[in-house]
Amino acid sequence: MPIRFILCEPSHPGNIGAAARAMKTMGFSQLVLVNPPEGHPDPAARARASGALDVLEAATLRGSLAEAVADCGLVIGASARHRRLGIAELEPRECAQQLLAAAASGPVALVFGTERSGLSNAQLDLCHALVSIPANPEYSSLNLAAAVQLLAWELREAQGTTLDTPPAESPPATIEDMEIFYEHLQRVLDASGFLDPGNPRQLMRRLRRLFNRTRPDQNELNILRGILASLAPGSGRRDWRGMPADDGESP
Amino acid sequence: MPIRFILCEPSHPGNIGAAARAMKTMGFSQLVLVNPPEGHPDPAARARASGALDVLEAATLRGSLAEAVADCGLVIGASARHRRLGIAELEPRECAQQLLAAAASGPVALVFGTERSGLSNAQLDLCHALVSIPANPEYSSLNLAAAVQLLAWELREAQGTTLDTPPAESPPATIEDMEIFYEHLQRVLDASGFLDPGNPRQLMRRLRRLFNRTRPDQNELNILRGILASLAPGSGRRDWRGMPADDGESP
Repeated sequence: MPIRFILCEPSHPGNIGAAARAMKTMGFSQLVLVNPPEGHPDPAARARASGALDVLEAATLRGSLAEAVADCGLVIGASARHRRLGIAELEPRECAQQLLAAAASGPVALVFGTERSGLSNAQLDLCHALVSIPANPEYSSLNLAAAVQLLAWELREAQGTTLDTPPAESPPATIEDMEIFYEHLQRVLDASGFLDPGNPRQLMRRLRRLFNRTRPDQNELNILRGILASLAPGSGRRDWRGMPADDGESP
Repeated sequence: MPIRFILCEPSHPGNIGAAARAMKTMGFSQLVLVNPPEGHPDPAARARASGALDVLEAATLRGSLAEAVADCGLVIGASARHRRLGIAELEPRECAQQLLAAAASGPVALVFGTERSGLSNAQLDLCHALVSIPANPEYSSLNLAAAVQLLAWELREAQGTTLDTPPAESPPATIEDMEIFYEHLQRVLDASGFLDPGNPRQLMRRLRRLFNRTRPDQNELNILRGILASLAPGSGRRDWRGMPADDGESP
């Protein structure tokens, strides 16, 4: 099951080991660490990994979340807070079903932020959706490895119960494809004057959230990029027929 | 909710603190320790309890499981193994339902054995049923606090609590709003030559599916329409600052 568990800047080695153990008990083994603490794997990580030392030792290290999810078709970030950012917020059971359905066509990722502050805005920009664990409103702070255990459990439970989803018409756009699209979009909006060149981030963040929610497939992304090319200031009127939009779904 | 979490002879203080934290995140507070290690509560327990120090400090200490469950109407023991003992073995969801149903008429208990060997035969004799967590057959050993987290989560889920969803930042776009957007989009794509005027339906259908999936709110739809206006063939370069995109979500 190509489900990647990604820990971003984990600060406590013990949590890394405990997360590896939690994953393995539920049958998962792909652990990715984005900038783990120096000296990884620490003795505390090894002790808490217990019988999951193999998962800990096989963990892949990456320098950024963007690198870690570049080839993923679905990225869901674990978030304790209600963020009101226009990113879909799933409950653990829905999260599990969506990850399993998407994992049928390629790698997917479940992403955990650093212990104290969670995912950064730049990391959230790479997420298609968030998963939030309903918890005690007076104290909702699960330990990192406990959150991994709970979501891995729901994934294991959901494997028995997921519906057969029809194969996608076209493979999902990967994070890398989406980055190329966002660069293109930003270039075009810049040229049109829509984007404030002094502060493009705010608007681009909103647009990312909007388009991430829709999880375009490759064909759809090609259509969007075709539209951008046709509308870019300075592009003359051209004949765009024959673009992927015309590739034959019956009306 | 009178559900007691009982840890029998826990050997690692860190696990006691982490169990208290796991309980509190799911809204439970009755922790009972049967023969905890000397020096309880240890600094390691306090550190791992984090914001659940109150639960840790209020833990009741007992000299035997029999004492700890004397007034309970239902006692379920957590067991990793299939024991073939003639005790009913429940899955976590059934366990949660039974505990909640029985808790309506008095105290009930969920009991965890010592880390290395689980519940003793004498302790099993006090259990009405066992709960077993389905896990990886090659490595099924959950950490004690991880098991507490998972079963507490199932109890909370069984209570039917739902996620409080935050009020939307802006009301969702209505079907009517979306129709106006699609007309605008079609006009602009027509003018750019991207749309085949002889057969616009195919492409427009695809774009509708793409944008319907993302379920934009009113603000987002205003941004999209602003972009269309700024990119429409013939629109000069204008200053679009002050559009709803800039309405103040902090970066």
